[in-house]
Amino acid sequence: MTSFIHRMQFTIEWGQCDPAGIVFNARFFTFFDTSTWLLFKAALGVPPEKLAPTFDIIGIPLVGAGARYMKAVRFGDQVDMESNIGEFRRSSFSVQHRLFVKGELAVEGDETRVWAGRDATKPSGMSARPIPADVIARFNT
Amino acid sequence: MTSFIHRMQFTIEWGQCDPAGIVFNARFFTFFDTSTWLLFKAALGVPPEKLAPTFDIIGIPLVGAGARYMKAVRFGDQVDMESNIGEFRRSSFSVQHRLFVKGELAVEGDETRVWAGRDATKPSGMSARPIPADVIARFNT
Amino acid sequence: MTSFIHRMQFTIEWGQCDPAGIVFNARFFTFFDTSTWLLFKAALGVPPEKLAPTFDIIGIPLVGAGARYMKAVRFGDQVDMESNIGEFRRSSFSVQHRLFVKGELAVEGDETRVWAGRDATKPSGMSARPIPADVIARFNT
Amino acid sequence: MTSFIHRMQFTIEWGQCDPAGIVFNARFFTFFDTSTWLLFKAALGVPPEKLAPTFDIIGIPLVGAGARYMKAVRFGDQVDMESNIGEFRRSSFSVQHRLFVKGELAVEGDETRVWAGRDATKPSGMSARPIPADVIARFNT
Repeated sequence: MTSFIHRMQFTIEWGQCDPAGIVFNARFFTFFDTSTWLLFKAALGVPPEKLAPTFDIIGIPLVGAGARYMKAVRFGDQVDMESNIGEFRRSSFSVQHRLFVKGELAVEGDETRVWAGRDATKPSGMSARPIPADVIARFNT
Repeated sequence: MTSFIHRMQFTIEWGQCDPAGIVFNARFFTFFDTSTWLLFKAALGVPPEKLAPTFDIIGIPLVGAGARYMKAVRFGDQVDMESNIGEFRRSSFSVQHRLFVKGELAVEGDETRVWAGRDATKPSGMSARPIPADVIARFNT
Repeated sequence: MTSFIHRMQFTIEWGQCDPAGIVFNARFFTFFDTSTWLLFKAALGVPPEKLAPTFDIIGIPLVGAGARYMKAVRFGDQVDMESNIGEFRRSSFSVQHRLFVKGELAVEGDETRVWAGRDATKPSGMSARPIPADVIARFNT
Repeated sequence: MTSFIHRMQFTIEWGQCDPAGIVFNARFFTFFDTSTWLLFKAALGVPPEKLAPTFDIIGIPLVGAGARYMKAVRFGDQVDMESNIGEFRRSSFSVQHRLFVKGELAVEGDETRVWAGRDATKPSGMSARPIPADVIARFNT
């Protein structure tokens, strides 16, 4: 786990909740995605929409994601969320997310993403690239 | 109003409903969008993802949308939806949507869209194009 | 138009954008909804999840909504949004929303909502109630 | 893994895709949720909105969910999805989901859910209940 942690706070909206009055599970993966972009922005000083052109990649697509729900999160709840890189591998990395409500851990999430460059020889149009050492270094300060 | 009408039927899902147990208003605009693509597919015989390349446009972006809610639509409700072109103008057109539950009109929607081509001279990168006569003709059969 | 205006600022997220790289139209109705709740919170001092119990209503359901799109709103754009009550009628009211990007009006929205109380005699389980004078007064200060 | 498999087919919509033109990861968890409800409907003959009242539960809330993305799923892609129960435990169960595009496995998902009844003595208002044997039996035919 790298030492750089991104924290944000937000309040659960009506449209994010389901008929049980709690956040619909798919929304948490939107929170994870948003927080990953903001983690990179905070660590690298590069806004989300500049990440691809700045590093000559096409993006940081997901290859996996998961969540554990410990406590229902409700309409109006104030959420304290923190995110950090779990591990950098050669061309992929994991992100860890934790959502707290009133100091209690409510949801844990994880994403696995690839540092992906354009590659016309692949059916997907992209291939994994080595993550630059100076990118990794910025998450360990 | 053109004579070609697209009809579809679907069932309201848990994740489309809010804590009041009814469809969250923003979701209806997703239904409108989907039905407009399918209306064009049915009338023109061109699947949504081929519409832009087939007609050398960048798409049919919205310039306006609206909805009137007459009756709550709930989790599990079966919806009968019908959509048609309201009017074709030179380079824009309106789409009308009606959602029925158990035979009663529950929601009415309208969209105004532009037939838009690529235009590098505009800040938006696009400009309105005349709608081809043979496109219009397919909605009046 | 009442004098009380709610303002908020937010940044467009990846997951809110469509393949054209712009905010998918349905998302704007989520922004409108969120801003209406926050407008009431700001004017009345009552958080969204306490609005219904505080005023003995079941909520402020929508009977209509609309949007005009003047300028594409893109991933990473910083949005300045302002919302106010357009008009209070006996038991319904309109809300007006304006979204600006870099000082330019990009999207205008409107909602019509009802002040709704529980009513077991109606199929919908609710009926419109007169909006309390002291609620209205708080939007004119 | 139980023998009862639910299959459905659907086409990827514009509003489900992100600026990369592929399905935004959070949407897959909506597909998983929808398919789980339909799996129960198919196995038990009980429509989603009747599941809670029929079995005197409050629902089947998630305690975990995950996805592996093997192949990008794009606007217009036709998806063949299949879902089945992975395992029934005393009061929880896992659901497995597989999405195929043109016969190739594109996404795998899993959910862990609880058979939950009302319980006023718990802060959450609910507690796990034993899954009825006749429910389990319906997934093994």
